[in-house]
Amino acid sequence: MSLETIPPRSGTAFRLRAGQRLKVVDPEGEQVADLAAFAASDTREVLSNGRTIDYASKLYFSTGDLLYSNRSNVMLEIGEDRVGTHDFLLTPCSAEMFRKLYGEDDPHRGCFGNLAAALAPHGIGADQVPVAFNVFMNVPVDGATGRISVEPPLSKPGDFTVFEAKMDLIVGLTACSAGQSNNFRYKPIQYEILD
Amino acid sequence: MSLETIPPRSGTAFRLRAGQRLKVVDPEGEQVADLAAFAASDTREVLSNGRTIDYASKLYFSTGDLLYSNRSNVMLEIGEDRVGTHDFLLTPCSAEMFRKLYGEDDPHRGCFGNLAAALAPHGIGADQVPVAFNVFMNVPVDGATGRISVEPPLSKPGDFTVFEAKMDLIVGLTACSAGQSNNFRYKPIQYEILD
Repeated sequence: MSLETIPPRSGTAFRLRAGQRLKVVDPEGEQVADLAAFAASDTREVLSNGRTIDYASKLYFSTGDLLYSNRSNVMLEIGEDRVGTHDFLLTPCSAEMFRKLYGEDDPHRGCFGNLAAALAPHGIGADQVPVAFNVFMNVPVDGATGRISVEPPLSKPGDFTVFEAKMDLIVGLTACSAGQSNNFRYKPIQYEILD
Repeated sequence: MSLETIPPRSGTAFRLRAGQRLKVVDPEGEQVADLAAFAASDTREVLSNGRTIDYASKLYFSTGDLLYSNRSNVMLEIGEDRVGTHDFLLTPCSAEMFRKLYGEDDPHRGCFGNLAAALAPHGIGADQVPVAFNVFMNVPVDGATGRISVEPPLSKPGDFTVFEAKMDLIVGLTACSAGQSNNFRYKPIQYEILD
């Protein structure tokens, strides 16, 4: 497959077969991509940050780490990773989030709305959208106080992270819509499926 | 309502009406209770650690903090809290977790199995069990490395935390079944619903 482009503040969904690799590219740098995953055979099986954190006993994930489903099966393994800083704590940005945190009156539907729209043709409802694996998102944690902050991504133009599917998946992927997550400039994301 | 007892390594589910308070008591100390919550009017609306962490910009929660659903509505507010240390990162312990992390051949069904069984009569499936709010669970985070560890709870005999319902809820509650989470002794949990 050739390199596909996700325009700024939008999202898409596609099938990823077991063994295929998904390369997520940040063409301009400092841009987050929210990644959601569902088992193609039964979309009630979904990516789970809670199980992944439990099995790895850590919050930060990079090359060699496994991302688990709510049924404790491995969905994805992280391959080559030119960035190494991602977030797996926060839900996709949403109209409600833009209202609550940014005080916006007429907010964008955000990654949450973009994922829900892209996943609907696959029979996946908005309520099923999980905490996404937020590729390139930079969320330092202060262990003493528990405070988190959202900082500019560390990704440079052309940086990428590869994910290998360990089961047949429906994947949702966005070019993130939140200002603070993307150093206040909305940029595209690119991706490629490699056999 | 009088004080109810959840025997060691078991769980229950019950309705909690908007405005009612749930007092979760650790009668012997060092015992975790996993708390899951669903909107009574539509159980696809469920407690969300990702939204709660996002809206509060922190990982640790105590008195005055709000626990949100996947639809960005407030489900519970934490009231009086005699402990102040809880976890909202990890999924309920499960047979798969006991196999993977403890190497057990014939594992207990864990809080996950106990919650699934208790919630089934309310029409809630096992796949819907979220990352629970793990009352009294002590999971320090190292912000520099992202490593987490599971330490003995800080709760002393008779300590409690109160949660006020902000909508009509179905609540699942357990006396946690994982050795490491409970200083390697399985103890009961008590609870009381206060009008």
